[in-house]
Amino acid sequence: MLCLKRPTDAAWAEAAMGDVDAVLVDHAHCEMKAASNALSLAARHPGDAELARALTDLAREEIDHFQRVLALLVERGVALGPPEVDAYAASLRKAVRELPREGEADAAPGLVDRLLVGALIEARSCERFKLLADATKAAEGRQAEHALWSELLAAEARHYRTFVDLAARAAGGDRARVEARLDALSAAEAKIVADLAHGDASRATIHG
Amino acid sequence: MLCLKRPTDAAWAEAAMGDVDAVLVDHAHCEMKAASNALSLAARHPGDAELARALTDLAREEIDHFQRVLALLVERGVALGPPEVDAYAASLRKAVRELPREGEADAAPGLVDRLLVGALIEARSCERFKLLADATKAAEGRQAEHALWSELLAAEARHYRTFVDLAARAAGGDRARVEARLDALSAAEAKIVADLAHGDASRATIHG
Repeated sequence: MLCLKRPTDAAWAEAAMGDVDAVLVDHAHCEMKAASNALSLAARHPGDAELARALTDLAREEIDHFQRVLALLVERGVALGPPEVDAYAASLRKAVRELPREGEADAAPGLVDRLLVGALIEARSCERFKLLADATKAAEGRQAEHALWSELLAAEARHYRTFVDLAARAAGGDRARVEARLDALSAAEAKIVADLAHGDASRATIHG
Repeated sequence: MLCLKRPTDAAWAEAAMGDVDAVLVDHAHCEMKAASNALSLAARHPGDAELARALTDLAREEIDHFQRVLALLVERGVALGPPEVDAYAASLRKAVRELPREGEADAAPGLVDRLLVGALIEARSCERFKLLADATKAAEGRQAEHALWSELLAAEARHYRTFVDLAARAAGGDRARVEARLDALSAAEAKIVADLAHGDASRATIHG
């Protein structure tokens, strides 16, 4: 799906379906972090108005989703609490730093990689929301939940494309280089997902 | 005006009116920082859904204003560039840390002060946008600019009230304590504004 090289195993969806509150809490934090990251990335490249516009559009949408998930948590009587360490995102950023560097001649070195990390996170979220949307589709009393997952998966797919397009633009239009880089990062991401699946971490998180 | 103890001197408006591009650039950065700060404050207090809701509403509005000012800069052919050091905000945060501590028994110590710093920054922005709005009101060819300053001043006044209300809420409803604290912070702010007015810093910034 999208650029992903390893599908999420069935055990994940089962664990997540069994603890929707935990998934919602985790996802509220993800949306908040995504909004902050988008703003920080825009602020680091102030001279690029098109990038700033696209990233602030994205941040606004992440804020909307944060508020929507938060309202649902309040309705369910669940407090948000402090975020857990996001081992997935941390590993992904580490993996990128360890890949041989590319694009040193870019106008903004490092920007392509940061955008592609964003793309991968959105792709994985999208894939997992699809699993949740499928699992709730015919489930009794879970139609509102099904609608939420469906809407979120569509948004994540759009964000994925936005990040890849922005990366291609940041690479001076060299889409082939960006696709090759995304391929390498995606292989690293697949390994991270496999490692997390075999670890002890809670599975009821969007990237667990 | 609002809680401010020292009015901005006339020389500021003159300098700002003479370099509107610089004021717009500075204000774009201010909006971006305000959005990031609001998100970071919400993320630090995840258990408080009402606070998170109010601060993310605020962040979204700051993003809207950032985009509006950015579009205007693009129209005027001005690049944003990296932000200058914000001596005003830095001095204000330092002044708060140096005031005798209060509210140690609050559910979230330090939150009241962070909200009141936000209130003061909004109040000062509001006061200065009012000066710009007044100065452009009857100026030929500056009606669009006048409309922008007028809209921004109204937004900053609203944000000021939001921050003060959130501070009172964070102080367990003890509005008298919050007003006294705001009074002390406002005295410190007045001194910072006086010092900046006598310094060499560029005056064509919202807090310069």
